Amino acid sequence: MQLTIERSALLKALGHVQSVVERRNTIPILSNVLLSAGRDRLSFAATDLDMEMVDEAEAQVNVEGQITASAHTLYEIVKKLPDGAEVSLTYSGDDPRLVISAGRSKFNLPVLPAGDFPIMSTESSGARYSMPKADLARLIDKTRFAVSTEETRYYLNGLYLHTVAEGGVPLLRAVATDGHRLALAETPAPEGAAGGPGVIVPRKTVDQVRRLLDDGNGPVEVQVSAQKIRFEFGHASLTSKVIDGAFPDYLRVIPKGNDKQADIDNTLFSKAVDRVATISAEKSRSVKLAFDNDRVKLTVRNMEAGQAEEEVEIGYSEEPFEIGFNARYLLDVAGQITGETAHFKFADPASPTLVLDPADPGVQYVLMPLRV
Amino acid sequence: MQLTIERSALLKALGHVQSVVERRNTIPILSNVLLSAGRDRLSFAATDLDMEMVDEAEAQVNVEGQITASAHTLYEIVKKLPDGAEVSLTYSGDDPRLVISAGRSKFNLPVLPAGDFPIMSTESSGARYSMPKADLARLIDKTRFAVSTEETRYYLNGLYLHTVAEGGVPLLRAVATDGHRLALAETPAPEGAAGGPGVIVPRKTVDQVRRLLDDGNGPVEVQVSAQKIRFEFGHASLTSKVIDGAFPDYLRVIPKGNDKQADIDNTLFSKAVDRVATISAEKSRSVKLAFDNDRVKLTVRNMEAGQAEEEVEIGYSEEPFEIGFNARYLLDVAGQITGETAHFKFADPASPTLVLDPADPGVQYVLMPLRV
Repeated sequence: MQLTIERSALLKALGHVQSVVERRNTIPILSNVLLSAGRDRLSFAATDLDMEMVDEAEAQVNVEGQITASAHTLYEIVKKLPDGAEVSLTYSGDDPRLVISAGRSKFNLPVLPAGDFPIMSTESSGARYSMPKADLARLIDKTRFAVSTEETRYYLNGLYLHTVAEGGVPLLRAVATDGHRLALAETPAPEGAAGGPGVIVPRKTVDQVRRLLDDGNGPVEVQVSAQKIRFEFGHASLTSKVIDGAFPDYLRVIPKGNDKQADIDNTLFSKAVDRVATISAEKSRSVKLAFDNDRVKLTVRNMEAGQAEEEVEIGYSEEPFEIGFNARYLLDVAGQITGETAHFKFADPASPTLVLDPADPGVQYVLMPLRV
Repeated sequence: MQLTIERSALLKALGHVQSVVERRNTIPILSNVLLSAGRDRLSFAATDLDMEMVDEAEAQVNVEGQITASAHTLYEIVKKLPDGAEVSLTYSGDDPRLVISAGRSKFNLPVLPAGDFPIMSTESSGARYSMPKADLARLIDKTRFAVSTEETRYYLNGLYLHTVAEGGVPLLRAVATDGHRLALAETPAPEGAAGGPGVIVPRKTVDQVRRLLDDGNGPVEVQVSAQKIRFEFGHASLTSKVIDGAFPDYLRVIPKGNDKQADIDNTLFSKAVDRVATISAEKSRSVKLAFDNDRVKLTVRNMEAGQAEEEVEIGYSEEPFEIGFNARYLLDVAGQITGETAHFKFADPASPTLVLDPADPGVQYVLMPLRV
């Protein structure tokens, strides 16, 4: 293998693929990036066995070939090379190392054979659709904070991405829950999405996809089967296994008959929650909300750190009502409300509360109350 | 105690004093700030028993008095209050808690009696001088990176601040060393400094002082005795115990007769060191420098991560010469070189190397070589 490539093109492609490589690996080749030099192209692949990221860049290839070397080390080296440098990559039988040279810099990295690199099989079955990057980014942003981190409930460790047909309109919907709160966001289903399998996309994949969505405009192509999901961004693509489990019947959790409604200024309310939470105990972070006559009083009591009270004017004309929530969960939801006002819909102090965003009818949040 | 104070004045003074308060304290009152309301003034004091920070701010005091409450909690609350808020602080016998209120926010914090708060005794003896903030900041910046973090050599865990009279000119000098490298910076001694005791200022104090030096221009007043050092910044002041130990005779470490000189472009050199260090082993970080005929070749060899080589053109006309250094130490020194060029002065591969900054004759760096 012998080629030269512009530093910025090399850096961008390496940046994409190296982020799936774990810092510590018991299987050495998983620390490496697979470099494949073909005609006018250098391809890159990295994997953690659950997720595979590939990309490619233009290069002047003199001798075609394949080799693997440490993804993080290679990325660090290229990052530190001067802007505009022409980078030469050489691997030949003579030196059993990959030689990286640019100007008067020369690096030799140990390699592992390309044949040992695990390539993820692709599947041709399943649905295939295309959607604007911003639409997928919205589905992720509005929901991923609610993904569970509890390993015992592995089927909640991801975003449930699926299509539904409510009232005849096919929708692409993302749902996440950790048992204490639930977030749902939906968008009209792109052509080809309807009928595809619902899959639980692992959190690491969701985070990786979200980073790639920031990179320019244009569409993202999604291909989904019962075992895998694949996202294509121009010449970069990410293929991931999905979580092998059944996502719970979340519709049962979303309350339908909550009749007490409070219209709350999202900015004023979240600042007040943030202030009273200052003195909440680290673990429970419980804040009590007392609604009465166009007003909500927020209270936190903590034996060690004292007590905090705030009042916020809201729209509320039902009977007086008290309920408690985890302050962190209230702030997570507030952080995703697009409009000025949030609609809180309550049943009673022990039942799930629904939070709606009048500026974005395609999202729903459910919060389980705490006893206060 | 009852007073009102403008939020920004309260925040600034609390910000100054809370930074000396440790996150975890076995003695509860050390987590607290002492609030003392006198005529038109609220004073603040915080301590970790080795260092005491005091400040004051204008306030409208209705009832004078003193109390202590959690410094970090109070600071967090005030930080989250809206800009421009008038904050009321009240402590009376009726409620055994400090009441903080602003607008519709109200907080009650547990207190400890002001009488239990440990006040550091002040000393009237010793030298007293005034110097521009920028001058003291320079002494700190050029040297503190070399302060040792090894607790067994406690007398190296600080900056040795003292006066010398070399060639009849009194100088204020700061020296730090960890046994592997040494940094020295000096400035003409301010009036009153000469003859004062040399003291080892603990690293935590140095860092605290350095932060306060960024806050506006003007002079800083220094008062130094054999046991304590005090820095005054307007109405804020920091008093610290000094390290009770003897700083080693550092002059013996600074080489005098090093005859091989290399003139090195600091930017090119430090970028090259940074690049080759990418593949150095985490611990030793050893880089070999080979000087020959207006050129230095940098080499790093690491069994696991490979090999790196760089060449940089320099001014060097002595016989060929090889020496090894810790890459981190080279970069620390390079980061403090003011001019374009660094002068390296070598004796032999096993002896200390002197690094000088032609743009700032008041600094000297000594690096112990590594065997390569």
